[in-house]
Formats: sequence, C-alpha cells, structure tokens
Amino acid sequence: MKHVAIIGGTGYGAIELVRILHMHKHLQITKIISQSQQGEYLASIYPHLIEFVDTPMEELDINQLKAEIDVVFFATPAGVSKALIPQFRGTNVQCIDLSGDLRLSNSQDYEKWYGGEAAPEETLKEAIYGLPEINKEEIKNARIISNPGCYPTSALLGLIPALQQHIIQPTRIIIDGKTGVSGAGRTPSSMTHFSETNDNLKPYKIGKHQHIPEIEQYLSESVNNKIAVTFTTHLIPMTRGLLCTAYGQLTSDITIDEVIEIYQSHYKSHPFVRIRKKDSYPTTKDVYGSNFCDIGLFVDERTNQLIIMSAIDNLVKGAAGQAIQNVNLMNGWDETHALHTIPMYP
Amino acid sequence: MKHVAIIGGTGYGAIELVRILHMHKHLQITKIISQSQQGEYLASIYPHLIEFVDTPMEELDINQLKAEIDVVFFATPAGVSKALIPQFRGTNVQCIDLSGDLRLSNSQDYEKWYGGEAAPEETLKEAIYGLPEINKEEIKNARIISNPGCYPTSALLGLIPALQQHIIQPTRIIIDGKTGVSGAGRTPSSMTHFSETNDNLKPYKIGKHQHIPEIEQYLSESVNNKIAVTFTTHLIPMTRGLLCTAYGQLTSDITIDEVIEIYQSHYKSHPFVRIRKKDSYPTTKDVYGSNFCDIGLFVDERTNQLIIMSAIDNLVKGAAGQAIQNVNLMNGWDETHALHTIPMYP
Amino acid sequence: MKHVAIIGGTGYGAIELVRILHMHKHLQITKIISQSQQGEYLASIYPHLIEFVDTPMEELDINQLKAEIDVVFFATPAGVSKALIPQFRGTNVQCIDLSGDLRLSNSQDYEKWYGGEAAPEETLKEAIYGLPEINKEEIKNARIISNPGCYPTSALLGLIPALQQHIIQPTRIIIDGKTGVSGAGRTPSSMTHFSETNDNLKPYKIGKHQHIPEIEQYLSESVNNKIAVTFTTHLIPMTRGLLCTAYGQLTSDITIDEVIEIYQSHYKSHPFVRIRKKDSYPTTKDVYGSNFCDIGLFVDERTNQLIIMSAIDNLVKGAAGQAIQNVNLMNGWDETHALHTIPMYP
Amino acid sequence: MKHVAIIGGTGYGAIELVRILHMHKHLQITKIISQSQQGEYLASIYPHLIEFVDTPMEELDINQLKAEIDVVFFATPAGVSKALIPQFRGTNVQCIDLSGDLRLSNSQDYEKWYGGEAAPEETLKEAIYGLPEINKEEIKNARIISNPGCYPTSALLGLIPALQQHIIQPTRIIIDGKTGVSGAGRTPSSMTHFSETNDNLKPYKIGKHQHIPEIEQYLSESVNNKIAVTFTTHLIPMTRGLLCTAYGQLTSDITIDEVIEIYQSHYKSHPFVRIRKKDSYPTTKDVYGSNFCDIGLFVDERTNQLIIMSAIDNLVKGAAGQAIQNVNLMNGWDETHALHTIPMYP
Repeated sequence: MKHVAIIGGTGYGAIELVRILHMHKHLQITKIISQSQQGEYLASIYPHLIEFVDTPMEELDINQLKAEIDVVFFATPAGVSKALIPQFRGTNVQCIDLSGDLRLSNSQDYEKWYGGEAAPEETLKEAIYGLPEINKEEIKNARIISNPGCYPTSALLGLIPALQQHIIQPTRIIIDGKTGVSGAGRTPSSMTHFSETNDNLKPYKIGKHQHIPEIEQYLSESVNNKIAVTFTTHLIPMTRGLLCTAYGQLTSDITIDEVIEIYQSHYKSHPFVRIRKKDSYPTTKDVYGSNFCDIGLFVDERTNQLIIMSAIDNLVKGAAGQAIQNVNLMNGWDETHALHTIPMYP
Repeated sequence: MKHVAIIGGTGYGAIELVRILHMHKHLQITKIISQSQQGEYLASIYPHLIEFVDTPMEELDINQLKAEIDVVFFATPAGVSKALIPQFRGTNVQCIDLSGDLRLSNSQDYEKWYGGEAAPEETLKEAIYGLPEINKEEIKNARIISNPGCYPTSALLGLIPALQQHIIQPTRIIIDGKTGVSGAGRTPSSMTHFSETNDNLKPYKIGKHQHIPEIEQYLSESVNNKIAVTFTTHLIPMTRGLLCTAYGQLTSDITIDEVIEIYQSHYKSHPFVRIRKKDSYPTTKDVYGSNFCDIGLFVDERTNQLIIMSAIDNLVKGAAGQAIQNVNLMNGWDETHALHTIPMYP
Repeated sequence: MKHVAIIGGTGYGAIELVRILHMHKHLQITKIISQSQQGEYLASIYPHLIEFVDTPMEELDINQLKAEIDVVFFATPAGVSKALIPQFRGTNVQCIDLSGDLRLSNSQDYEKWYGGEAAPEETLKEAIYGLPEINKEEIKNARIISNPGCYPTSALLGLIPALQQHIIQPTRIIIDGKTGVSGAGRTPSSMTHFSETNDNLKPYKIGKHQHIPEIEQYLSESVNNKIAVTFTTHLIPMTRGLLCTAYGQLTSDITIDEVIEIYQSHYKSHPFVRIRKKDSYPTTKDVYGSNFCDIGLFVDERTNQLIIMSAIDNLVKGAAGQAIQNVNLMNGWDETHALHTIPMYP
Repeated sequence: MKHVAIIGGTGYGAIELVRILHMHKHLQITKIISQSQQGEYLASIYPHLIEFVDTPMEELDINQLKAEIDVVFFATPAGVSKALIPQFRGTNVQCIDLSGDLRLSNSQDYEKWYGGEAAPEETLKEAIYGLPEINKEEIKNARIISNPGCYPTSALLGLIPALQQHIIQPTRIIIDGKTGVSGAGRTPSSMTHFSETNDNLKPYKIGKHQHIPEIEQYLSESVNNKIAVTFTTHLIPMTRGLLCTAYGQLTSDITIDEVIEIYQSHYKSHPFVRIRKKDSYPTTKDVYGSNFCDIGLFVDERTNQLIIMSAIDNLVKGAAGQAIQNVNLMNGWDETHALHTIPMYP
C-alpha cells in the first residue's frame, strides 16, 4: 500500500481524486493538505464524504511529506506546484501535477499564457506529460507527471491519429470546445452563478485560453511539425462533460470506414478510448463519471472535411482519473485499476 | 409621464423592474442608482440591456430625488431602505420597498429575524403591505409600499381564502416552499454555484427563514387570530419560479368543487390570480415571466386535508411585477398596465 | 460466482443494475432479457455500455432461467412480474422484483392503486419487503424480494424512528415528496419532455400516487397501528435524486440533540443511513450515484413539529442499489459489497 | 385590425406566435387551427394560456380562411404548407410559412434534404425569404413569406457582412451550431427526454441537417458566388437559445476594431442586430425571449481567422418573432412593433 497526499484539498480535482482512490487497492490517502482550511474536516465542506474522510486537513510540511508519502497529487491552482515540486528533487516521491504549471516546455509560453515566472527549467525537463495514449512508456519511468488539461486531453486524443496518419492537413485546424461548468472550479463567480449559467450558453476566453499553447505544443510534437490551431471555448449549462468538435481539411479521398479503422487501430491498446461506429456520435453523458474518451467521426464529402467529436468527463479523464491512470502506469499496476467503471447514465 | 428612480440598480429586482417598466406608458426610468457601481453603465454588467439603458448609474442624492422623481423603487438588500425611506417624509414621492425592511409591523420581530434595528415606528405605520389581492383599497391611498416577499406572496394567496372561509383549521398549517435560484440574488456564493446547484435539491434555512414572521403576521391579520405556520424552504435547480405546497386540516366535509368555487369567487376581481380546475395543478413555468399566481387545489378525503399549490414567478409577482402593480393602483391606472403579458412558455 | 438475469433490460432500473453489478465479485450478468428488443445489443441503445455489455438481449424463456440462473431481477413495468415470479415457485431461484407488483399485501389495495388483478396470494405471502433497515433478518432468509419504491424508501427511513420512539404523533403526518425525472422511466412523454421540464417544477399525481398505500402499509406495520399519511409528489428539473420532507407533531418536549441521538442509535448498524448533525441538511447531490440515505432533522419549537428530510438517489437506494443490497443479504455476503462507493459530487 | 389564423396550433411556433401577437395592436388572432386536436382548447394543453385563449381550435377550411382571414401563419411540420399555400393563389391573404417547405429554391435540394416532392414551382418563385436584414424591400412587397430556419438566421446574420465585404475567404467556412432543445419541437422522443438530455451535450444530424442547403443558398446569393459550408449541430441542455460559432479565413490584415465597425455599419438600419464591443461575446440568455440577434467578433491573429458568434432565441428571431417582423414590414407598420421588448434575464 502506497501512501498518498493530496495538496489543494478543497477543490473539485481533490474530491474527485478522493472518490476514485477509495476504489484503489494499492493507494491509500494519508494526508489531505489545505493551506486555507487546515484543521477543518473535508466532510464538513463536502457532506457527501461523511464516513469516508475522517481526518482533518493538514498544513503543508514538505519534510513530512518526503518522509511519509509515496505519491503527491497537486490539485492546486496555477502558480503553486511550480514552487513545490522542485522541493521533492532527489527523492522518490512521485509528483502528479494536475495544474498547468509544468505543461508548457517553453518558459516564455508559460509567462505569456499563464502570467508569472515559469517553473525551473530542470523541473520542466523532468516532468513527463501524462497523456498515456501518446506517452505510455515515458510515463512508466517518470517521477514527475504533468497531468494534461481537460480540453487538451479531448482535443489531442481526437486529432493526433488524423495528423499522424496524414488524413488531414496540418494547417487551419479548428477546434470548437464546449465544457461543463465544473471545469471552472469551486470558487463562486458571476460566470458560474447558477441563475446566469442555467439555460444559457456562453462563449468565453475567446483567443485567450491557456490550453491553446498546450494543444499546439503536443500536436506539434506528435508530428514533428509546428502546428497552430484556432480554438474556442463555450460554457455549457451542465456540471460535468467536455466535448471538442474538431475540423481538419482532408488530404485525399478517404471513406468514413477507412478513417474509423485507422482510429480503432491507433487506439487498440488503449483501454480508455472508444471509437464510435459510423453515424454514431458521443454525448458527454456517455462518459459521465468515467475515464473514457469517446470519439465519433464524420467525413464531410461535400466540403472535404474530417469532423472529429471527442467527449470526456472533464473531472475524470480530464483531471483526476487520468492522474490515477498515470500513477498506475508509474507503479507497474494495471493501467485501468480503479478506473474501469461504467459511466453513470442517465 | 412620471419619473422613476431605481435604487439598488445592479440586482435582479432592479433589472426586472427595468424590463417591465420598458412596457409602461406612464412611468419612465430617469435614474438608476448604485452606490457600489456609480458611473458604470448597467448594460456593461447586463448586456441584454444594450440599446435599452444608455445612461450611467448614479450615486444616491436624496435631495435630487425629491426634486426630480415621482416614484422610487428600493431594490436594495435588507437594512438599506429603512434608513432612506424616512428621508422622504413630508414629500409626495411614492416609495416602493422591495426589501423586507418594512414588512414586519412589530419591531422585535424585525430584530429577531433580520437582525439590526427596525425602521422608525412612524415609517412602519405609514407603510402599506403591497399585496393587492388583500389590500387593494389601502394601496390606492398609500405613499409608502412594503412590497411582499416572494414566499409570502405565494403562501398568502394560497391560504387566505381557505382560512377566511373557515375551510381549514387555523392550527398546524404546514407550508413546504420551493424556489428557483434567482431568489437568492446576484451575489455569487457556494449555495448558488452552478456545479453544486445544478441537478441538486437543497433544503435551506430550515426554521430560520425571515419570511416566516411575514407569512404569520399577514395570515393572522387576515383572520384576526394569531396563526403560526411550519414553513420550510427548498432550493430547486431552476432560475425562476416559486411554488408553495400548503397543507391545512379541513374543518368539515367539503368537496373539491366547492373549494374551487370559493377560491374562484374570492379572486374574481383580482386579475392576476388564476384558479385551476379540478385535477389540474400549476407548474412554475405556467407563470414564467408573468405577474400571475396560479393556484391548484386538492381535497384529500383520506386524511381530511386541503392541499394548496400556488405558483408564481419569484421575480415578477414575487418582486418587480407586484411592485409595478402597486404603483398602478396608487396612481389610479389600470392595475394590469404593463403586466398583462402571456407567460413565456416553454 | 452466481448467474444473474435481468428482465426488462432497456429501462433505467436495468442499466443501473448493470452499472453496479459490474463492481460485484459474486454476481455475473448472464442474460439480459427484453421482450420488445430481443436480439438487439444493449450498448446500441445505451452507448455508455460499449465494451461492457457484448451479448444481445434475449427473449424470455422461464425454463432456461430456472436451469441456468441463480438470481433474477425484474426491472419491469407494473403488471409483469406478478405473472412471472409465481412460475419460479419450488425452485431456488432468487427473485428480486423492482416493480410494485408485490409490495401491497392487500389485494384490494393493489387493484385500487395499480389497477388490474393482484399477484397470487401465495406469492404475496412469500415475498419479503426488501428494506434492509427494517427487515434485515427476514431478507436474509427470503427467496422473493419485493424491492421498495423510491418514495417509500425515503419516507419510511425518515419516519420510522420517530414513530417507533413515539417522538411524533401517528396522526396527521405530512410527506412532501420531490423527485428527479429519471424516476419516471425511459418512455418519452410530455411530462418528461426536456423543454417543458427544464426550469420548471411540477406537482403531479396529487392524491393518486401508488406509493401512498405502500408508505402507509409499512409505517403501520412498523408501529402496529393503522397510519394514514398525506403525501404529495413534485417533479424537480434534475435527473437523479429524491427528497422527502416529512412533518410530524411532536408528542412532548424534546431537543434536536435528543432526536439526532435517537436516530443515530436507531441506524447504528445500518451502513447506508447517515444522520446529519444539527443544522446540516442533506441535498440530493450528497448521495448522487450512491446507496446512501442521508437524513436531516429539525425540531420546530415554534409549532411543535419534527421536520425530517431524507435524501436518496432514486435509481440506487430507490431501486437498483437496494436490490443488490438485498441480494447481498440473501446470500450471506457483506451487505455493502459493490455498494460502498463515494457519491459523485459535484 | 387584421385577422390572423395560425395553422398548426399546438406546436411551440404557434404558442410563441400567440404570446407575441397578444402585444400586437394591428393583428388579432381569429382562428387557431389544428387538424389533430380540433375542438380542444389550447389552454387545456398549455395552461399558461388560461384567460388568454378562449376559443376552441378549429379544423382547416381553406375557403373560410380566404373569406375571413388576412394573415395566415403556417406553424406546421415540413410537408404541410407546400400543399396549402398554393390554394391561396390569387387572393390577398398573406401567407407566412414557418416551416422549411419554401426555403430552397431548387426542387432537387428539397427532395434531397427534406424528402418528398417540392412545392409547386410558381409558389417557390412567389415566396420571399423572410430575413429582413438581407431582404427588407422585397419583403415589403411580398404576399408569401418563407420564414428562415433558426440556424440559418443566426449563421447568415453572422457571416454575410464578412463575405460581402471580403473580410473572409468564401471557401472553407465552418459553422459550429449549438441549440436549445425547444428547436426540436413538442413531440416527445428519446432525443429530447429530460433524463438523457439534462447535463448532457449531444452532437446530432452531423452532415445531414436540412439547414445546410438553406445556409448555402442564401450565403451564395448574398455574394453571387457558390459557397459551401461545413456545418455541425449540437443539442445543448437548455430550453431556448441558439448560437453559431463561425470560422472564416481572413483575406488580409484587418483589426478587430475595423471588423466591428464594418458590422456596425452593415446593420445600422436593422434594429434587431446588436454588434458587441471588442472582447464582449453574446450569450444566449442575452437575447432570451427577444427578437435580437447579438453578434460578437474576434480576429485570431495567430491563425488568421475571423471568429463570429451570433446568438438568437430560436423561437423568436429564429421563428415566431421574425415571422411577425415580416408581417410588420409587409403591412407598412413599424418593423419593431410588438417585438421591441427587453430580453428576459436572468
């Protein structure tokens, strides 16, 4: 049994980790750390956890973590983990960063899109991008994982097969992103106020979303070619779920059956990607509460476009579930351990 | 054309006043006053108002209001209007208070349920409770209106005919209240955070809701008898709409047809109350965006109870619409002016 | 490993059984039976089940079931299981009826509230009402389980301790029920049409709900005294979740602390009931996707009422989860096996 | 006062016409016609109409309509109006078709996308496409109006200025459409069943939506150039509201300020189009219940794309409101009569 600490205990990433880790046989939550609410009980903030989490949240003590903990999840806002993870240098403590701090390999990109100074170069270099469907072998040997963003998870899983197999042009890729509101976290704001979000659809952060450089970096790496994407984001009146509709220009005549076969083949050893049959498209509820990414495909012969729809649960495959998938790989456990559950429907 | 000022310009009560007053032929909004955001344009906070509201919000200047304004709506949080309305003493300025400051005639009740000191006794005495279906003649001659709370509007309209006609006992009345989230106002909080409110049902303020003494006071006045009620409140994942399900013990054998006839007769000169036929019950969407209160009735012969379901739009009949209905009456205009619109459905 | 058949494969009860049974170590789904859609794949109707359910639905063959199956779940509409379950007489096949066919011990009640003829008397007699918190020992020895309705589960768990301990009077009990829409099943209707259900609150089946006699029968049995209740039902714009707010007249002065202690003591050996602390009330999302029933309590000293709020997930503790809890007990397994999962929040 | 008949009385288009026409001074609803429910009262199906609509629905009698009615709205499903409207030939009866029957000028397109035979050639020729922002003068002189589809209204208003001013290339235009559920009408189906639509996002009719040829035809006409578009549609868990996010390749360097100025200038004489300032994007709730189309713009300098977001209420500007706007123009009344209302927010 390995000992786990979760830093940033009161956010949605943290409680989703708690939910999934409860089903994990090799990992045990030993500490939940919250700077703002140390001493409080998580179950007093989140009553659904009553009888599951019985110890108070603790303050951060790096030395204690080094001594007692095997795996640390950083479910912290941007700007926190970049200062903490370097302090675990030289230890065997596995660090999984659910924030964006270590995702951009280029420091200038971080400064431009996130603001503030980037993480130390050596930490950035050591961190492995934790998208198992592109990076499984490196993850197995990693000590630091930079867990992907929710939109990038959906967009990359949808686009990479088409780009790597040259089904679509690497230029003028358009990604229309749509997310549930839990992606915005737990801090109340007018953007996430029920009365103005319910029965409403809101475009937001147009041209400014910090997931743009992340998507571009890993698409570029996947084909060794600089790729830029047009990416928009829309807030959907639902709690969980994220779907990207991506559009790419076909390079040649290809049938939908051929495209589906390429995708199925591409993901055949990846248990969390499900490719839909022709004329079937994923809805976000099809993956609700699960670690799946469901992908639907359409060849628009009239306009020569490939349309890719990829759906995830933003809190699971887009955050906590993927983090645990990474830890499973890092420790030689079954990749699907604690994660192979049926989505909650309806 | 009378000149209107709205104080508390950025809340939902205020913008609902703006929406309805736009259809009013005798009232013109001259000033929108916001202490916290003076100088700002309301349409920059609420883009739905673009091209409708073109002047910046102003700071409060009582003397200027006295000089230029005929009707002031106080769409302010509890504790504000009790200090402002007395300053209009001796003028002809009509003051409509949408807050709870003037609703409780007994100062101790205010102190107990709202906290803080009550309004001056003479202001409390001068203020008329603005529920036209019980108070129409007094409203016509009023200068100060205490506009009813949303729950009391629904509960009182549902219960008063049964109590006045002795259909039900005056004891052990139970009112189970259910409201949409807009009733909680515009300030973001975890209670109204989309991710935790969507697909969720939350009991709240059990035994502590400040509408309890208001309901009791006006029920008691309606029958000249001290009445206490058990009242609970539940937050429903919808933006607008409020429904009270009230339960009273029948005093004698009575058929549902007789009850319906009594209610229809009671409200026959009140254009905003619609009594449903037997076996038809109001949904909140049936009154969405309108000033109606729809009432459904059931006689439970098995247990000798009268069940009363009364639905309103909490922002219209429960706030802004009723306020304008009161102003119409105070000025001798048609009670339904600007208010006789079809609910928005679906 | 015991073999399971689910009859009524395409309803919500069935797919929730599939979801939970996937986590069960002693039960394996061998057959999914659908008369209307035999030969079809469940995953083609419910794509969230892709890669989980790979065999086509079958037609009903009682003899084959007797030969091959150990446990049959009847997730069928009213009127089906009463004709099927008697055919398993004299076998060891465990029959769990999620419909209402066997819940009312009095045939006349069935005919009145459900319509049609009741199940054979001997089947009614053999069937045990599967609410483990009141009936655990009998369930352990049962072969036929009548799984409780969703509202009765919530109402009975909330009221029984208060009645058995004489905290409240057995007369004039009022239960105001509120349910998510999945309780109405999968058949589309205007009642459950999104455009008219979203942002809407609908009272329905007032005075006519078939759960009324079920609640009354088991309340009466629990105190050996004929109890009648006033029970109303409201459709809430959410998918899952059910909450009953029950009101009972206090028999004597009692403090909230005493009431809470009585409830905690009453349920101390029942792992799926969680009693809230003073001033904390359950929301339906606190139990989302789980088998818990969370109960909150309030003593209204002003009106001498006990207010009981009990929340469940209507598809889990209100249907499939409770069914599996019963099977666990019938087979001597841990009552919580496959069921002790953290609710999905948010 | 002109006399109005509405054919197809029980659909959402019809009741939205009823709602808006109630505010119209020159139009009076004389007949509501429903083949399936003649003799019934509309208010018994739609209780929000109680006290507003008091006559029963009638069967269709063309001769009677010719004799008594001035304006007929066809709020009928596809395939109905094409047979009825030709029967008004040679009369002065104004015919407004809210269905798609007369929108495609090419009969083969109709047969391909709608199925069945197209309307008679002479009717297609006489019908004017009722999008006032592109066609105002022809509408003024029309007798037959083909009222635009909801998606085409949003897409065309968003794209036409950019295409006519050569801001974007006429090739590889992508339109990502998102709609509320009321666009699917009133007939219950599993697609619109609450439990599976709430908290869910569903792509649908990918590559097959009958609004594709409509968008292409009128875009092509607007620039005298054959234009093809990639168009997708997504069902959003909200009742009303539709937003298209359109992407076009910029033809040259242009600033967002310049684009906004071009759009403002383009629509300066069109009272129902509101162009947002830089960095402000429309949400669907900003136009809820109103006839506005709000347009937001973004120049993505990184990828050389113009991103256009255009929001409407699908039942108002996307159906009934636009129909009345057309009738206003046809009769020389103020274009905004009965339509210049403030959106309902929140």
